[in-house]
Amino acid sequence: MLRRRLTSEFLGTATLLATVIGSGAMAASLSSDIGIQLLINTVATVFILYIIITLLGPISGAHFNPVVTAVDYFTKKMKAKVAFLYIIAQLAGAVVGAILANLMFDLSAINISQHQRSGSNLLLAEVIATAGLILIIHLALKQKEDKKIARLVASWIGAAYFFTSSTSFANPAAVFGRMFSDTFSGIAPKSAPLFILAEIFGGLLGYLGFKALTSQSKSPKAKSGK
Amino acid sequence: MLRRRLTSEFLGTATLLATVIGSGAMAASLSSDIGIQLLINTVATVFILYIIITLLGPISGAHFNPVVTAVDYFTKKMKAKVAFLYIIAQLAGAVVGAILANLMFDLSAINISQHQRSGSNLLLAEVIATAGLILIIHLALKQKEDKKIARLVASWIGAAYFFTSSTSFANPAAVFGRMFSDTFSGIAPKSAPLFILAEIFGGLLGYLGFKALTSQSKSPKAKSGK
Amino acid sequence: MLRRRLTSEFLGTATLLATVIGSGAMAASLSSDIGIQLLINTVATVFILYIIITLLGPISGAHFNPVVTAVDYFTKKMKAKVAFLYIIAQLAGAVVGAILANLMFDLSAINISQHQRSGSNLLLAEVIATAGLILIIHLALKQKEDKKIARLVASWIGAAYFFTSSTSFANPAAVFGRMFSDTFSGIAPKSAPLFILAEIFGGLLGYLGFKALTSQSKSPKAKSGK
Amino acid sequence: MLRRRLTSEFLGTATLLATVIGSGAMAASLSSDIGIQLLINTVATVFILYIIITLLGPISGAHFNPVVTAVDYFTKKMKAKVAFLYIIAQLAGAVVGAILANLMFDLSAINISQHQRSGSNLLLAEVIATAGLILIIHLALKQKEDKKIARLVASWIGAAYFFTSSTSFANPAAVFGRMFSDTFSGIAPKSAPLFILAEIFGGLLGYLGFKALTSQSKSPKAKSGK
Repeated sequence: MLRRRLTSEFLGTATLLATVIGSGAMAASLSSDIGIQLLINTVATVFILYIIITLLGPISGAHFNPVVTAVDYFTKKMKAKVAFLYIIAQLAGAVVGAILANLMFDLSAINISQHQRSGSNLLLAEVIATAGLILIIHLALKQKEDKKIARLVASWIGAAYFFTSSTSFANPAAVFGRMFSDTFSGIAPKSAPLFILAEIFGGLLGYLGFKALTSQSKSPKAKSGK
Repeated sequence: MLRRRLTSEFLGTATLLATVIGSGAMAASLSSDIGIQLLINTVATVFILYIIITLLGPISGAHFNPVVTAVDYFTKKMKAKVAFLYIIAQLAGAVVGAILANLMFDLSAINISQHQRSGSNLLLAEVIATAGLILIIHLALKQKEDKKIARLVASWIGAAYFFTSSTSFANPAAVFGRMFSDTFSGIAPKSAPLFILAEIFGGLLGYLGFKALTSQSKSPKAKSGK
Repeated sequence: MLRRRLTSEFLGTATLLATVIGSGAMAASLSSDIGIQLLINTVATVFILYIIITLLGPISGAHFNPVVTAVDYFTKKMKAKVAFLYIIAQLAGAVVGAILANLMFDLSAINISQHQRSGSNLLLAEVIATAGLILIIHLALKQKEDKKIARLVASWIGAAYFFTSSTSFANPAAVFGRMFSDTFSGIAPKSAPLFILAEIFGGLLGYLGFKALTSQSKSPKAKSGK
Repeated sequence: MLRRRLTSEFLGTATLLATVIGSGAMAASLSSDIGIQLLINTVATVFILYIIITLLGPISGAHFNPVVTAVDYFTKKMKAKVAFLYIIAQLAGAVVGAILANLMFDLSAINISQHQRSGSNLLLAEVIATAGLILIIHLALKQKEDKKIARLVASWIGAAYFFTSSTSFANPAAVFGRMFSDTFSGIAPKSAPLFILAEIFGGLLGYLGFKALTSQSKSPKAKSGK
């Protein structure tokens, strides 16, 4: 049922991007206080992440994020072809989500963001945001807490919107989609490559952190303590 | 026990509309920042949806929405007569909820809204908001996650308040009730018919999406993969 | 172990009032937007209600509210003497909570509120807020959803803060305690009696609503359908 | 596996401090309304506490707080050496978290806070905030509600941010880490000792309150009532 899984990745990523971009556009139109704008953006995103991970998780695993898919590929949980198709579905979903948000807010379907985001401190923020995301997902799976992943990931993004200086994109598909809307949540194409690179590096770091935190000691098993 | 089910639909819809309209009136009287106003409106609605779906779900199924009832009728889960009475109870509840909100905020019991809401982008928003709602309800039921429906629906409306340009009515009974209060959450009667039409279309689309996402492949069952 | 139950009622009500009054004082000192002030007041109260009902429920039933206790007495779930002592513990806790909040915010331990709250619309709001509270508690108990009562009650008060024009005191002990702090959440003593009367009436109404919603039909049991 | 437990305490405390300080810096840069700033600071902290307690609890017990560790030591649940190493890991994590937040917001890695926080009313607030924290943790453990501790602690801090006048540090490691960032959440070193003293006293008080609330009566067990 690969078709269904890809539909799920497409639909989930489209919903995520429509929410991130739509709520950003809404927020900017309602308030002049940027703190309130980001609060609105965050609340909407947290709610949507909870929904799409809960309901689409059983269908496709609810990645919606090429870094999550790539980690699954490199740890041999997923074949190259499927991983590739997942990422295509995510990118396509991201663009469609951006277009829907643009149309709902009476903007032209595609309008490229002029919002430049640069500075090594923002890249550090993306590394941390993505590392945390990957660490959380793998720790939760390891602890058989699959049922809590929706809440944990939604909570992480909810916090990282505020405590990382980049407002935590943490997702190359999100970076991709946000290029197509010149609104509050947008990112200029020329800022995108470094963001994506930082996210890939963060994903790697998060997985290494996960291994460090859960690896067994090197002493023989017979000696194992708790 | 049809009487009890209808009482439940009436009471739930009245509570929902009293909350949507009351919190809108409160918000507009407290803050001049429209972002804050919508945040207040959203928080109150999310909390109430969680309560009425949790507690009245076991009694009437917690529709509170003619589109939800209509989908049940067309998929033969509900008889015409019962569906008809459900919708009457919802509409009556919506008006009573509006009246209670008006009285609590010292307005005349019925005061018709002058708040025009038009534009094809708002209608697109209503289509998306209602499609998502129906898709979420049916996916959750299919996955035997009935216990989570209260949280999922509350989260969806919580997100859609912000990411759809119409602030997500997604419910013809809500449209109906909101005509009777000339406050923050109101809608002018002349804007109502297109909103309701968009919601009906969204409901249809949501159900088709649900079928697409969960349909079995056409290959013979003997070959079924995962 | 009556002593432990009374300690629990005292401690819970003190914590509740310290939170309601303290967060109101904090909010008023931080922001000049009354919408934001009420948001802060609500968030703090919702969190605290979740905690005190979850942890003290197993000890004393987590009433913290004379109307809740009175309904238990009149439905013969509680003896007169115990109910009386519960209410004394609640009122004492309310005053101590108010005093603690005052001291934390560098006010004199007791300072009587000048905040007049009157108007029949506010009394209607108190009736609705208290009726909903009693209905929710009894519906949840009837449906064996005791585990959800903390979340349901916290959500109800979270919504009612915004959708009722009185900001939902819904608790004579809260009215009592709030007289002792001339801050955002206070209430002038002369406004208190009608608030309390409205709450008692609301409690009665809520219990009648509960009976109406859950009563069996009058037809003989042998005929009972679902 | 002491190494893993210490890594968990280090990582959790670093994440907590990066969040508290980072979201404070973000908030102050986005809004001029201090109410909104504190709301943002609170939302981020609540989300992070839920995550780190849920996922690191199974590894190290999720203390992240020397007072919590000290109570475990004095009640003989933990050996002196382990408790000492826990506290070192927490303090080191706190500093690293502060540094990460500073770097993400383009500040020098270490910049000592000038934010003086003094007054006996703030110290009373710290006593109450820490007492509540210790009481909640031990009540929840006693009631076998370990699964809810993440939500309960997050809710307590979420409420105490607003209802205590000190915004509830309630954690000597947090006090320590916040000295290293001259931002919204910082605390000047000269204000730190009394805060820490108040927290230690609060921890003691909280534990005594727990004993009082759960102690058996002195009557012989044979006579035990409910």
